[in-house]
Amino acid sequence: MSTKKVLVVSAHPEPRSLNGALTSFAVEHLLAAGHEVRVSDLYAMKWKATVDADDFPDHTGAGPLDVLAAQERATLAGRLSADVAAEQEKVVWSDAVVLQFPMWWFSLPAILKGWVDRVFSNGFAFGVTVPPPYTEGAALGGRRALLSVAIGARESAFSARGAHGPLADVLFPVQHGVLWFTGMTPLEPFAVYGTVDLSPEAYAAARREYGRRLDGLFTDDPVPFRSLVDDYGRDMRLLPGAEAPGATGLGLHRRP
Amino acid sequence: MSTKKVLVVSAHPEPRSLNGALTSFAVEHLLAAGHEVRVSDLYAMKWKATVDADDFPDHTGAGPLDVLAAQERATLAGRLSADVAAEQEKVVWSDAVVLQFPMWWFSLPAILKGWVDRVFSNGFAFGVTVPPPYTEGAALGGRRALLSVAIGARESAFSARGAHGPLADVLFPVQHGVLWFTGMTPLEPFAVYGTVDLSPEAYAAARREYGRRLDGLFTDDPVPFRSLVDDYGRDMRLLPGAEAPGATGLGLHRRP
Repeated sequence: MSTKKVLVVSAHPEPRSLNGALTSFAVEHLLAAGHEVRVSDLYAMKWKATVDADDFPDHTGAGPLDVLAAQERATLAGRLSADVAAEQEKVVWSDAVVLQFPMWWFSLPAILKGWVDRVFSNGFAFGVTVPPPYTEGAALGGRRALLSVAIGARESAFSARGAHGPLADVLFPVQHGVLWFTGMTPLEPFAVYGTVDLSPEAYAAARREYGRRLDGLFTDDPVPFRSLVDDYGRDMRLLPGAEAPGATGLGLHRRP
Repeated sequence: MSTKKVLVVSAHPEPRSLNGALTSFAVEHLLAAGHEVRVSDLYAMKWKATVDADDFPDHTGAGPLDVLAAQERATLAGRLSADVAAEQEKVVWSDAVVLQFPMWWFSLPAILKGWVDRVFSNGFAFGVTVPPPYTEGAALGGRRALLSVAIGARESAFSARGAHGPLADVLFPVQHGVLWFTGMTPLEPFAVYGTVDLSPEAYAAARREYGRRLDGLFTDDPVPFRSLVDDYGRDMRLLPGAEAPGATGLGLHRRP
């Protein structure tokens, strides 16, 4: 097996938590497989979650802060704040990114959302200055991505008829919106359910399964999201007739 | 018209932005209609986005921080940090909550996600100590909720066949996950698209439409999400046969 570089981003305030344990497990497992690993433990780093004018040292405050424009200028000039630049360097270094987080309110915890908001800047992860089509291998293209998510509720609540919506739909804004859109190659998420009262046996089973998923990080089939170039018009709509037979809802955006 | 109480939560770092203008417009429009209005301008308040041990003054640090348990204990004991308690008081005071935000990475900006993560605490917005079923009028029940979202991309990208997914699906984790699940009554979102280069005419049209939506805040038909009590089993799955004819995807969770 060839050695790869993996960035693990972890977002839980308590190292002695399930999320902390899964982060440690992933790091050890990947190192044992011969990979290089770097970790961004966002709480330990006291990661600043909010995009604001401090992200852009050249913003004078004389005029209004246009976030998209300021991001692009600072990114292209190499003048982003040091914490953001350091994270971008890690992403560029990596062959794969693993995000470990508890599902809070059906999405990323704020500290991890803020990592995306700040690190995936205009001019770095997307935008007119990134060689288009940035979903097809430019920008962050070629990097695999795996969400590892700890969920308090039961799996049935996230099933096809579950009240919270299918997990793939709930995570679509991250899987497709963040990862696919920036050219990364997302795998199906790894989820541990029922974390509110996880038995030792269920935890052991989850570790085994997570190990298998980490073993397949560079070989498992990714989510078969479509090609922005081939399958969508200039108005960003799926071309007529492109859908798989019977595909509905967000499933439209998967290849047959 | 009867006077109501409206909490407007705004999440943009620049007051001289479209989001800032829409916040000011909403406040003036609601006041002119005779309502009481309070504003949480999260950036101006320097809102702390991340849930951590500082939220729970009674957490000694001797044992691991269990976020759900610590939230519940602190909420029930009235021992949450003062900034969180102040926001909960505003939510309780309100008859409706309006969230004004730019769509960043297909979701809430981190500072607003952190408002949800911290304010909608276990024991306040959900949880076993909140009289069940908390989606049917307990907890935050009876309050209307309106997302007002500024989106850089074009509307076609968020249409039924749009690459980013239908707006209703992209916002499902907020509309259904956060608002419906805590007993609130979400309206269809108000969205302004194409904000990257919004013409004065388009802005004027958006203001007019937003005014109409604010006029209907307490009278417009809400999103017809289902009843957790009547339509779902104990496993949180939609009961067999409950779906509307032809309903697919996340549309399953709307009544016929």
